[in-house]
Order: sequence, then structure tokens, then C-alpha cells
Amino acid sequence: MRLRHKPYAQDKLLEYKQYVVEKPEESKGKWTERFGKPQPLHIEIGCGKGRFIIEMAKRYPDINFIGIELQTSVIVSALEKQIDEQLPNLQLMQVNAKDLRDYFEPGEVDRIYLTFSDPWPKNRHEKRRLTYKSFLSVYETILNDEGELHFKTDNQKLFEYSLTSFSKYDAVLEKVYLDLHNSEVEDNVMTEYEEKFSKKGNRIYKAVVMFK
Amino acid sequence: MRLRHKPYAQDKLLEYKQYVVEKPEESKGKWTERFGKPQPLHIEIGCGKGRFIIEMAKRYPDINFIGIELQTSVIVSALEKQIDEQLPNLQLMQVNAKDLRDYFEPGEVDRIYLTFSDPWPKNRHEKRRLTYKSFLSVYETILNDEGELHFKTDNQKLFEYSLTSFSKYDAVLEKVYLDLHNSEVEDNVMTEYEEKFSKKGNRIYKAVVMFK
Ligand SMILES: C[S@@+](CC[C@H](N)C(=O)[O-])C[C@H]1O[C@@H](n2cnc3c(N)ncnc32)[C@H](O)[C@@H]1O
Ligand SMILES: C[S@@+](CC[C@H](N)C(=O)[O-])C[C@H]1O[C@@H](n2cnc3c(N)ncnc32)[C@H](O)[C@@H]1O
Repeated sequence: MRLRHKPYAQDKLLEYKQYVVEKPEESKGKWTERFGKPQPLHIEIGCGKGRFIIEMAKRYPDINFIGIELQTSVIVSALEKQIDEQLPNLQLMQVNAKDLRDYFEPGEVDRIYLTFSDPWPKNRHEKRRLTYKSFLSVYETILNDEGELHFKTDNQKLFEYSLTSFSKYDAVLEKVYLDLHNSEVEDNVMTEYEEKFSKKGNRIYKAVVMFK
Repeated sequence: MRLRHKPYAQDKLLEYKQYVVEKPEESKGKWTERFGKPQPLHIEIGCGKGRFIIEMAKRYPDINFIGIELQTSVIVSALEKQIDEQLPNLQLMQVNAKDLRDYFEPGEVDRIYLTFSDPWPKNRHEKRRLTYKSFLSVYETILNDEGELHFKTDNQKLFEYSLTSFSKYDAVLEKVYLDLHNSEVEDNVMTEYEEKFSKKGNRIYKAVVMFK
């Protein structure tokens, strides 16, 4: 955990236990109880400062959202937004994506958003990419049969890699957008990185993937 | 057959029987005999005026090539190039890709090049796209187990469609290039359309696909 820049971050996360899940393993299989309302569960992996997940939770009150982020010093910014908004259908969780099977029963999740994941461009770091097969296996387990993985990135090499990784894993590409911001898509909500890099002129790529 | 603009085309194809296969069904299972030399067999579907396949046949004398094109008035330009070059490892064939099972035994082909296929952008014309599942089934049959389909296009919508079509067909994306001309690829040979549209500034997309 990088606390260098924000030493108060860990304290703040602990202070707002109603928004930040302290013991996610205790909610495994019973996320509906924590939210109160039985509705579909969508999670974002690597939610960063929370711009996307906050906007999604506002826009879709009939869906329960969990923002997942590894770094304490980053997720605290998402918490700050949630303290302002107090969205009842949004929870935050500071955990590692590789461990999600410890926090969700098989099939408990209806949708995963994977947004602007770190590209890890070197071949020897392939295993760290969040679309590497070991991560796909985690996603496959926790998603239900109709569940979808929505993956967005502006990184061409990561997108190329991910398409082949999905395909080799036998996951099905339901949709592919090679220039999302110039495609006929109505309800795209931008992440922080998406806004930043599309302003620089980068294309945004998106894939919708299902496991069978 | 469109003979409007080139009424001499059909005659010319019939005149050069050594380069243009007149009865391809008679070579089914014995293409090696026709070429004389037993070496891998690569075919291009929709070879147009033949720029790519002529250059490939020059560059790779240890591979047998067949250029396949539906239109008499177009393939005649490929023939004219071959009359100049007299490449022993190149044959031309004026047939429809949908019938390739009639001309090749299962597993007889080592590689298929699908280059700048007509995009057929309307949904109701999906079945005409050369990456529609009925065509993939033909390619799967005639390719051997290690065989690859190399697909190039500058058409974003066709490429998006094709990625999902490959994936739904259970074909494996071995490689994906989202900007071929700015990727680390050494031996790219351009087709007529590729030269024309890359000059206009279009990105060139490529996928290498295997059937399992
Ligand atoms: C490049 S940022 C993108 C943030 C945000 N999704 C956006 O689009 O603005 C990627 C984030 O993923 C987080 N991350 C990387 N690996 C993770 C993992 N294994 N589990 C959870 N979060 C992870 C990083 O800490 C980082 O905040
Ligand atoms: C857009 S052109 C591209 C020509 C060439 N590959 C190039 O890149 O310059 C597509 C070609 O595919 C041919 N074609 C379309 N459908 C075909 C089919 N079913 N069988 C064989 N050729 C076909 C067309 O006649 C046309 O010449």
C-alpha cells in the first residue's frame, strides 16, 4: 500500500465503514444484505478515483455497484466523492482483483467493468495484465452465466493483447468497438483516464466479453 | 460474370490455361501435381488485380500460391501480370469462395489470405461478408490443423464484425494488429486496396486466426 502521499487515507477508509467494506469476505454470497436492495451487482476493477463508478451509481439506482481498487491513496478520492453523494447503491473495496473469489460466490456478479487497466507493456510482465488468463479465470468464476465483462482502454497494445487473450481463453467477443467515441453508443460514461486520453486524441477501444 | 467493360476477358482467361485453372474440381486433392513441386499451398480469396499474390509468389518461391477471384473482368488483370512474370508457383482461379470445398480436399490448404473483402455494411447483407460463419466453415474445412487465416482490411466496421464472428465461431485469434503499418511487422506485402487506402490515411487492421 502506498501511503506516502496521503498518510491519512487508511484512517479515512476505516472511518467510513458504511461505504468502504472492511471485511469483504464476510459479505461473500450475501452482498444483497449489505446493500439492502436485491438488484443486479456490477463491479469495477481498478476504479481509481471513482469518477466512472460514482456516475454509474447515480445514473442506475436499480443496480448495486462496487468500486474495487488496490491503492489506498487512490480509492480515498472515490470515497471523498461518495461522502458528498451518499449513494445507497455504491460500495467501495480496497482489495486485489486476483483475490475476488474470496469475496464473491460463483455467479454472484452480473457485470464487471475493467477500465483503463495498467498496460504492463513488457512481455515478462504479461501475468500482471488484468486480462491475463489467471484473471480471466477469476472473472469467469464470479460472473453468472449471462454476465458480461466490459473492457475499455486507450492502449492499443493492451487491447490487441487482450483480444487474443480472451480468444485463447475461449471467452466470446460479443462486441468490439475500435473507436468508441465515434461509434453509435448512447450511454458511455467516461472514466478519468478516458477523459484525459481521449482529449489527447487517443482512440478509445472497448470489448464486451462473455464466458461460456 | 460482369463482362461489360472487358468483353475480351473471358477469352483471355481461356487462352492461358497454364495459369488459369479451367476445371479446378479436377485438381481437388492433387494440387501438387498441377504445380509440379510439393510445397505448402497458400491461397488468396478475392485477389482482385493480383498485386499481392504476384508479389508473394515472387518473394516466396518455396510456396505454391493460388489467387482466387470471382470477377472475370478483374482477375484478367492478375493474369496479365502473370503473363509478364511467368511465375511457376502461381495459379489463378475464377470461382466463388463459397464453393472452395469443391476444389480442395479437407486440410489441403496451409494458409488463406483474405484481403480487403467487400464490407457489406448493411446488417441484412451480413451473410455476404467473407467472414460470415458459413465462409468460416469453408475455411475451417480446407485448412489443415496448423493452417492460418490471415485477414487484412482498412474497414473498421468489417474488422469489428469479423473479430466477433471469429470469436463466436470458436476460431482462435492468434494475433491482432490494430494499426499494421505502425506495428513491428517485417514482411508485409501490400495489396492494391491497402496501398490506396493507407495513402488516404486509413489504418490497416490485421488478424491471424486458427481453427481448432
Ligand atoms: C490506469 S488506472 C485507471 C483508473 C480508472 N479505471 C480510470 O480509468 O480512470 C488503473 C488502476 O487499477 C488499479 N489496479 C491495478 N491492479 C489492480 C488489482 N490487481 N486490483 C485492483 N486494482 C488494481 C491501479 O491501482 C490503478 O488505480
Ligand atoms: C475490395 S476488392 C479487394 C481486392 C484485393 N484483395 C485488394 O486488396 O486490392 C474485393 C474482391 O473480392 C472479390 N470477391 C468478393 N466476393 C468473392 C467471392 N465470394 N469469391 C471470390 N472473390 C470474391 C471481389 O470480386 C473483389 O475483386
